[in-house]
Amino acid sequence: MGDDAAVLAVPPGQQLAAATDTLVEGVHFPLGTAPSDLGWKALAVNLSDLAAMGATPAWALLNLTLPAADAHFVDGFAEGFTQLARPYRLALVGGDTTRGPLAITVSVFGFVPEGRALTRARAQAGDAVCVTGSLGDAAGALHLPSRDSGQGEREVLMARLNRPEPRIEAGLALRGAASACIDVSDGLMADLGHVARSSGVGIELELDQLPVSTALLQSFGAEQARAWALGGGDDYELAFTVPAAAVSRVLDELARIGCGATCIGRVVKGEGVCVLDGRGEPVQPAHRGWEHFS
Amino acid sequence: MGDDAAVLAVPPGQQLAAATDTLVEGVHFPLGTAPSDLGWKALAVNLSDLAAMGATPAWALLNLTLPAADAHFVDGFAEGFTQLARPYRLALVGGDTTRGPLAITVSVFGFVPEGRALTRARAQAGDAVCVTGSLGDAAGALHLPSRDSGQGEREVLMARLNRPEPRIEAGLALRGAASACIDVSDGLMADLGHVARSSGVGIELELDQLPVSTALLQSFGAEQARAWALGGGDDYELAFTVPAAAVSRVLDELARIGCGATCIGRVVKGEGVCVLDGRGEPVQPAHRGWEHFS
Repeated sequence: MGDDAAVLAVPPGQQLAAATDTLVEGVHFPLGTAPSDLGWKALAVNLSDLAAMGATPAWALLNLTLPAADAHFVDGFAEGFTQLARPYRLALVGGDTTRGPLAITVSVFGFVPEGRALTRARAQAGDAVCVTGSLGDAAGALHLPSRDSGQGEREVLMARLNRPEPRIEAGLALRGAASACIDVSDGLMADLGHVARSSGVGIELELDQLPVSTALLQSFGAEQARAWALGGGDDYELAFTVPAAAVSRVLDELARIGCGATCIGRVVKGEGVCVLDGRGEPVQPAHRGWEHFS
Repeated sequence: MGDDAAVLAVPPGQQLAAATDTLVEGVHFPLGTAPSDLGWKALAVNLSDLAAMGATPAWALLNLTLPAADAHFVDGFAEGFTQLARPYRLALVGGDTTRGPLAITVSVFGFVPEGRALTRARAQAGDAVCVTGSLGDAAGALHLPSRDSGQGEREVLMARLNRPEPRIEAGLALRGAASACIDVSDGLMADLGHVARSSGVGIELELDQLPVSTALLQSFGAEQARAWALGGGDDYELAFTVPAAAVSRVLDELARIGCGATCIGRVVKGEGVCVLDGRGEPVQPAHRGWEHFS
């Protein structure tokens, strides 16, 4: 930094993975979100993209647009950003600060050995479909009642909304094991739809297998929790496919690094993503309560 | 593209130069700027940073924030962006489109042979200070009277504001020849101030040597033209220092590739940037009319 551009060296034998996302106040985060949470989340949503590629984080660019010079905001933002960046030794190598309506663009760059990046395009019929962690918490956090309906649950869900943990280590563990991988940002069905399309396959999900947190279940009940697990979005978990013979080895390896993961379905011939109930019948979204996510 | 991140290969022996800039409507460009001009300029201001490093453009990321889906805007923007990108074979490798107040973030990436990037930090006392092209036109364009005071001049100045030509080829020619280089975006004095600070030197400029266009002179007169040349900004020319013995060779080489350049001063011991009149007397900004650029 200090010159017109940063000059960076990619290690020999490594490719560069690049991802970028803009967050706009009132669109991607509520007014009044704590600056430190914003700093964390703006980086986290980008690192989640690197995780889905099986890349090791290296550098970031930060473009911060603020209505006015605001040291309180900048200090808080930097604190949250740095908390997440430091363990990865991620270097902020450039960016700018401009005046305007509050918005944040972060771009991240990571390394991946040549030809070993995870993609969305190699899922095959017969593969298992799995997902890390639990789903739907962030959507639940946005719908918490204003009165305190259980302080413990509120804290768990708000942390999942404001401080998502990008699954970097899981992405590295899945390199060479998963046939396809994507991060769950738009919602599980939408994101697995991208995998299905890119791979030219169909995907069947088991409604009863969707991993949801106790906090979400206790706050909203099973039906609403599953609806948000399927379509709520903002989860930043990894959804991936893996050959059936390798499933238990892969889940064991993820458990070893402290990352829970659950098999939630299978890759089939065909197209699209469908959800099956406990009897193997396709769920009719109109009867299950999540039609408003379409 | 199509996965969570782009996967890119940097050629062996090359470093990566990275630059990024955000443009916000009403701050960096007037409301009503043509979308195609915006597409061009959002890329141009970033390529100008690569030019100042002596880097060859390779990739770009584009984050576009729009108040509403607007095919007319997107088509126009893409047209201007592509017009500038195509001759450089610049590949758009990622980005996003979000809803919000109109703003554009472009990040660009270029290659430079290991250790050969131009910087701001190696100007030495005795070096000549030079600048490509002419200065002040963009500032003049923002002050054109609404009535038509000369259609030819208006077109020249507006083109300089809306369609700046990044000095990529000049930057490549200066690699290994210039001791320091910067692009003129904030204004000549401010930007040479960065060079002086980074290099630990002072800079003296000759007021009479500042290159200004005929269009600017005819529209605003010499005094105002020079004021804008010193502080107007938005020029996207390269200001550089070069050892005195190499000046004529460097200027000849630039002329050969169709890029005019002018010697406008010298590097001296000391600090800061000062401007001398025709008698070698320091100009007092308060008496010369550009105090409002401080």
